[in-house]
Amino acid sequence: MNRRRSYFALLFAASLFFPAARADEGMWLFNAPPQIQLKQRYDFDLTDQWLEHLRLSTVRFSGASASFVSGDGLVMTNHHVGLFTMHKLSRPDRDLLADGFYARSLDEELKCENVELNVLASIEDVTGRIEAAVAHLSNPAQAAERRRAEMNTIEKESFEKTGLKSEVVGLYYGGLYHLYRYKVYTDVRLVFSPEESVAAFGGDPDNFEYPRYSLDVCFFRAYEDGKPAKTPHYLKWNTAGSSENELVFMAGHPARTQRQKTVGHLEYLRDVTMPASLDQCRRLEVALLAYSERSAENRRRASAAVRGAQNSRKARLGMLAGLQDPAVLKIKQAEEESLRRAAAADPKLAAQIDAALKTIDQTLQTYEKIRVEYEMLEAAQAFHSGLFHTARTLVRMVDELSKPNAERLRGFQDTNLDALKRGLLADAPIYPDLETAMLASSLGMYTELVGYRDPLVRGVMAGRSPPDRAEELIGGTRLGDVDFRRRLVEGGAEAIARCDDPMIRLAQFVDGPARKLRAICEREVNEPQTRAYGMLANVRFALYGDSVPPDATGTLRLSFGEVLGYRRDGETIPAFTMFSGLYRRAESNRFAQPYALPPIWIGLPDVRPVSCSSGSMTTPRSWCTCG
Amino acid sequence: MNRRRSYFALLFAASLFFPAARADEGMWLFNAPPQIQLKQRYDFDLTDQWLEHLRLSTVRFSGASASFVSGDGLVMTNHHVGLFTMHKLSRPDRDLLADGFYARSLDEELKCENVELNVLASIEDVTGRIEAAVAHLSNPAQAAERRRAEMNTIEKESFEKTGLKSEVVGLYYGGLYHLYRYKVYTDVRLVFSPEESVAAFGGDPDNFEYPRYSLDVCFFRAYEDGKPAKTPHYLKWNTAGSSENELVFMAGHPARTQRQKTVGHLEYLRDVTMPASLDQCRRLEVALLAYSERSAENRRRASAAVRGAQNSRKARLGMLAGLQDPAVLKIKQAEEESLRRAAAADPKLAAQIDAALKTIDQTLQTYEKIRVEYEMLEAAQAFHSGLFHTARTLVRMVDELSKPNAERLRGFQDTNLDALKRGLLADAPIYPDLETAMLASSLGMYTELVGYRDPLVRGVMAGRSPPDRAEELIGGTRLGDVDFRRRLVEGGAEAIARCDDPMIRLAQFVDGPARKLRAICEREVNEPQTRAYGMLANVRFALYGDSVPPDATGTLRLSFGEVLGYRRDGETIPAFTMFSGLYRRAESNRFAQPYALPPIWIGLPDVRPVSCSSGSMTTPRSWCTCG
Repeated sequence: MNRRRSYFALLFAASLFFPAARADEGMWLFNAPPQIQLKQRYDFDLTDQWLEHLRLSTVRFSGASASFVSGDGLVMTNHHVGLFTMHKLSRPDRDLLADGFYARSLDEELKCENVELNVLASIEDVTGRIEAAVAHLSNPAQAAERRRAEMNTIEKESFEKTGLKSEVVGLYYGGLYHLYRYKVYTDVRLVFSPEESVAAFGGDPDNFEYPRYSLDVCFFRAYEDGKPAKTPHYLKWNTAGSSENELVFMAGHPARTQRQKTVGHLEYLRDVTMPASLDQCRRLEVALLAYSERSAENRRRASAAVRGAQNSRKARLGMLAGLQDPAVLKIKQAEEESLRRAAAADPKLAAQIDAALKTIDQTLQTYEKIRVEYEMLEAAQAFHSGLFHTARTLVRMVDELSKPNAERLRGFQDTNLDALKRGLLADAPIYPDLETAMLASSLGMYTELVGYRDPLVRGVMAGRSPPDRAEELIGGTRLGDVDFRRRLVEGGAEAIARCDDPMIRLAQFVDGPARKLRAICEREVNEPQTRAYGMLANVRFALYGDSVPPDATGTLRLSFGEVLGYRRDGETIPAFTMFSGLYRRAESNRFAQPYALPPIWIGLPDVRPVSCSSGSMTTPRSWCTCG
Repeated sequence: MNRRRSYFALLFAASLFFPAARADEGMWLFNAPPQIQLKQRYDFDLTDQWLEHLRLSTVRFSGASASFVSGDGLVMTNHHVGLFTMHKLSRPDRDLLADGFYARSLDEELKCENVELNVLASIEDVTGRIEAAVAHLSNPAQAAERRRAEMNTIEKESFEKTGLKSEVVGLYYGGLYHLYRYKVYTDVRLVFSPEESVAAFGGDPDNFEYPRYSLDVCFFRAYEDGKPAKTPHYLKWNTAGSSENELVFMAGHPARTQRQKTVGHLEYLRDVTMPASLDQCRRLEVALLAYSERSAENRRRASAAVRGAQNSRKARLGMLAGLQDPAVLKIKQAEEESLRRAAAADPKLAAQIDAALKTIDQTLQTYEKIRVEYEMLEAAQAFHSGLFHTARTLVRMVDELSKPNAERLRGFQDTNLDALKRGLLADAPIYPDLETAMLASSLGMYTELVGYRDPLVRGVMAGRSPPDRAEELIGGTRLGDVDFRRRLVEGGAEAIARCDDPMIRLAQFVDGPARKLRAICEREVNEPQTRAYGMLANVRFALYGDSVPPDATGTLRLSFGEVLGYRRDGETIPAFTMFSGLYRRAESNRFAQPYALPPIWIGLPDVRPVSCSSGSMTTPRSWCTCG
């Protein structure tokens, strides 16, 4: 238990799963790879050519990790990464999660709605340009706007010059800014997926734990011009697999780590944001399960969301247990002390640390004052409904498009408009009863947290109880109709202004207050925090060089480590799990959920060892994606 | 949807389920029955003899409702009332919930641990004696203690005089005090129970909703001197059942209603206590489900608790939706306004209303200051563990027994000691892994809500994270061993003082602070609130007489109403559900949980209509317990 807990407590990343290959410290940048460490620890020479091949073989799949595994665009990723895409492709009579899917020919591959694959083409350091743009501005509000404008402009220039999707990424909480350019694939098709009962075998109990026996994998294919994409860089399948004590690499897009956060910031996570976020997870999970229990079709409709909610809850529970463990926080305190000691000789660095820590504490106090309303209104936790999300995007898009590109909110830049419209017009199924149940729950939460007497709450509820108001909104909106959405997208500001759809009206009603909260957050929280963390990063650079990789930011990273088993309660847990273990576990649980297996899986003979992971796992000598 | 929601929003009682027989307003006292109303509305003559027969046929079953249905002690109640008892009787190889139970002879009846049946023998008004005891005391702290002492003394005197279990009950929030005397049965045996899948058919989705198709029933038998008890008063089974539009009665023990709470108090429930209580329900439900999913045996161990948690969550969600519905609160506001108007002519009454409302608001403000810590420590929400509960009872018992009877905390009076010891020494199964999971979750909640920096939190956690501390406590305590408990009970204060059991030590560590919070609550919240509500009750008596029944207090009440169907969305929902409806519902849900049926139920022919309810339902002309 302890081993498992501290494992995911330290991991601090919701979307990254490790098998028994435990990584050495660090999720390294591809333009600052751990060459020295690899040479020293493993006598391994990391060449530019090796790194380029891995980078071009690695795919960002709707924010998560995947890799090319053939020269004609075949993409392998985890089943949980493809989950929402497969759920959207399912219908009552075609349940891809329950039954799995296999396209016997290219013709049978299923085209996905609104999936985007990115391959990292280049990284450029733009720190100097952004710092120069804001250096003369002492007013945080102006600096925040200027910083955003400079990022929007850099991205637009890059896109116009290269035709590549361009994103400016802040690293070390603003210590560095890198411009990432991606080749984009938008025609993506489903090739193969096992049944969810196999892919997520062990369900919530086995999630984030090892040993685990799930075939957590699925295959898609990238297309260009209606044909399988040519992908000369790909990871070849290695039928020999990896072996114990072998050096392996993971290339992927870990979502977010918080290792460089200050102790004060981690305490704020522990005491405030993590408990609040867990309450939301539990609320969502219970509402989804109550909905699911009503019928088999309800269960199908909510299945992907249930898995998502359980995944979030379990990840956060582990993080919170880590934060609530005095031993874990002691390590962070010691790190902060040792930074102070290292800086003690240089009064300028010491003063920078003090100033940064003070600023970060102040920003947390400021955020706490707006936190609940910010989460409810701007982060839209009060409106847990895809149809509300559509309404807000429509309402904001027409507002933002009336401004020059540089001044727009992030996400509404010219370079992102195609993706935005693709999302708005995607023809994925919408289930009004599920939308109503979720919206009722989130409106209830909003009423509880902000208070029934709040004028904005009263305005949102319009004299109804939360369940009645949810029914009224979902029953009344026409946003479920893709043609209606298309008319609004094409009609622009005028169409939105004339529109009397209740969900559009609601999105308009809360947009002013939500934007105000966002502005406060950007100016008084994010911008000073960015500067303070940037200052701390610079102190660390000055003292330690760039030997500490930045926290994960959803961008491409390289990790490495040895394939190892471990010991727990005096027992050796081997580095690999076998299919036979899956059958043993299913049998000892009487094949009951979440240990059920599809009928065609029962009676299959034992096959090769398998142990899958997200990201691309490679060994120094041979490429493989599944060890 | 609306109909169903307002139905349980108005119900406001967690432990009372109605079928389609919708009650007229009121849960009437047996010593103030609605004779006039019944004569006026239904031309029905309620005689003393009729009422006495019903009273002596009705049983309080561990706080819930049941009735005698034969002259030799056979007791019928709802399956959900017997649930925890049957769960305690189950073992991995004898799952009474999954498989049901039927004793083919008296010998096969299963003796239950720690079940007490009460039959109400008499009611005596002791308001005068209690008021006289506290009238001269203006200090609320002294008054609270004096009130408690007087109640303890009255009970002790009554028990010594009559040999009957004696309880003083506050009605109208302290407007009246009645002494209830009960005949007690402690030898109770299980006779029959259907499978849980049938008894709770439809699970969470159908719970609190109608139409419903569950055979929510089970039978026990009361024994005296090792033989079936002689129970000359019992409700005879009526094979004809009841019919639509017939007048029916319900006699039972509704737990708690809050109809006479002030608008300010209801708003406090809406804004503070109900959301907090729902968060706890969800937390518990998610932790239990995560535990349950790990194996079939885990599911069995947690099954009763899961049903309890889901029941609480669904009841409270309905209550909160009612409170958050402006239309519902408007009715309460109008009632309060009309009370003020009625009192306007009498300045003394008007002043009493003002004073009472002001006092109630103040008590809520006071309670809010201690609420979280009171709930965590005194209400022991931080310690969701049966073993902690045992430890606390042991620790408190030795402290309380060193005081004179009148000064003891409620629950530790001489009259209650037998029941206390029976509970402590009951040999029901304890599952350490389940205890650990629940305690880890509740310790986590305590840390979140009170704060990691709190010295008491630090003391409770003893340098561990909540999951590690839970493992340490449950792994280390010997309280699961009934012989160990017996030695502590017999060894008294000295044995407890010497005991180094970690759970006993924890109970001791938090007992001082918990008692302090309890004292504040009794003196500064309950006592002034009791007086204020008593004042309001007296104003109502003065203006309306006792035509308004008091809120439910877990004591015997009589309700009445007509058997009626209703209309929803243009459809007529009939007053009775049939077995055929159960099969239709199971089939249309593919016999998947919670609509699964046991194998022997599949293929049975259609049988008589059935529609069960808790409490004893009677018709004027014929006794029956199941319409």
